[in-house]
Amino acid sequence: MTQNTPAPTDRTRLRRMHERGQYDADSIHSILDATPICTVAYVIDGKPYATPTIQWREGNHVYWHGSSASRMLKASAGHEVCLNVTLTDGFVMARSAMHHSVNYRSAMLFGTAHKVEDPDEKAARLKAFVEGLFPGRWDMLRPPTTQEMKATTVLGMEIDEAAAKVRTGPPGDDEADYALPIWAGVLPIRSEFLPPDPDPRNLAGVKMPDHIRNFQFG
Amino acid sequence: MTQNTPAPTDRTRLRRMHERGQYDADSIHSILDATPICTVAYVIDGKPYATPTIQWREGNHVYWHGSSASRMLKASAGHEVCLNVTLTDGFVMARSAMHHSVNYRSAMLFGTAHKVEDPDEKAARLKAFVEGLFPGRWDMLRPPTTQEMKATTVLGMEIDEAAAKVRTGPPGDDEADYALPIWAGVLPIRSEFLPPDPDPRNLAGVKMPDHIRNFQFG
Repeated sequence: MTQNTPAPTDRTRLRRMHERGQYDADSIHSILDATPICTVAYVIDGKPYATPTIQWREGNHVYWHGSSASRMLKASAGHEVCLNVTLTDGFVMARSAMHHSVNYRSAMLFGTAHKVEDPDEKAARLKAFVEGLFPGRWDMLRPPTTQEMKATTVLGMEIDEAAAKVRTGPPGDDEADYALPIWAGVLPIRSEFLPPDPDPRNLAGVKMPDHIRNFQFG
Repeated sequence: MTQNTPAPTDRTRLRRMHERGQYDADSIHSILDATPICTVAYVIDGKPYATPTIQWREGNHVYWHGSSASRMLKASAGHEVCLNVTLTDGFVMARSAMHHSVNYRSAMLFGTAHKVEDPDEKAARLKAFVEGLFPGRWDMLRPPTTQEMKATTVLGMEIDEAAAKVRTGPPGDDEADYALPIWAGVLPIRSEFLPPDPDPRNLAGVKMPDHIRNFQFG
């Protein structure tokens, strides 16, 4: 693993296992694109909060959204946040408790979230979100009303202060421990999509679109 | 869904979709027990951080651990944290963009993290962690050294300020939209374990233990 790009700031600089770190845009983007599921941390009255949500990337910006009444979005807009995306790829089983680990891909983004205020831009961002996951779906849907758009807040953040951290491969045991008769290895984990579960209220004859039938992340 | 237990504090009280909320111990515990993967939010210099890690529960306490040099653990010990566990169970595809949603189970825990200082208690907690996921493994491993134990920090928190939020089932569309010929339904997601990948350096004849062969969460 190369490390051509230095940490952009002190808080992105990896303290532990820094050899697992990457700071280049491709490394960050590939993790953001691998799953929409993320966690946003924010501060209210000096105290930390972590809320799971869904993110999407356009160029070098990341976006997330929700109800305009959301405490998370209100506490994030115009404020410092930390957005984390982590994919857990496996449990790493070593010969000592100490060297047990997890294989993962994690991206940590810092910055100040901004609210997408312009209605046209907000609509474009939301369309890009839906189309990014489900190509062709936006135009199949009942169009959003003005009221629905007002009730939705979109936040965005430039990806200019971020770190990726990745672990892959077998355990790294103490050399002497490889002589021990202990099973070691990796238990791989992945997200799987089960067959779609159609709404019982779907109209007769409505076909399952390809963006559902062939759905996958990334 | 019943709501017999009120929110323990104002910050645990759900603002949005409060009908999805549960505040009783069984609801919280069942989510913590369903996956060890969690995110811990903490504050450094007034700014939020979210770090993915692994949690385990013993009775009404939750624990997490890492290197004693970890920035996350040092910034959490004796300080306010928010620990979140979220399982994403499916994408909810509605007839309007607005009503698209996610099926999930999420537990949000607030409190002050404490460091497990007593060496015997620390060892007992770490053993419980390994045994909870992989029954029988602790005693098969090369025992931890004093130095390894010193290099490991265990943090704990009483589960006394927590909220669970759960969404299940099909989309909830506007009544008029059910007349539209749009495919709606749920795309179920689950974590899957692939066949274990033995370390190429395993000794000849070392058998895969049952806790690997039959591994599952919860």
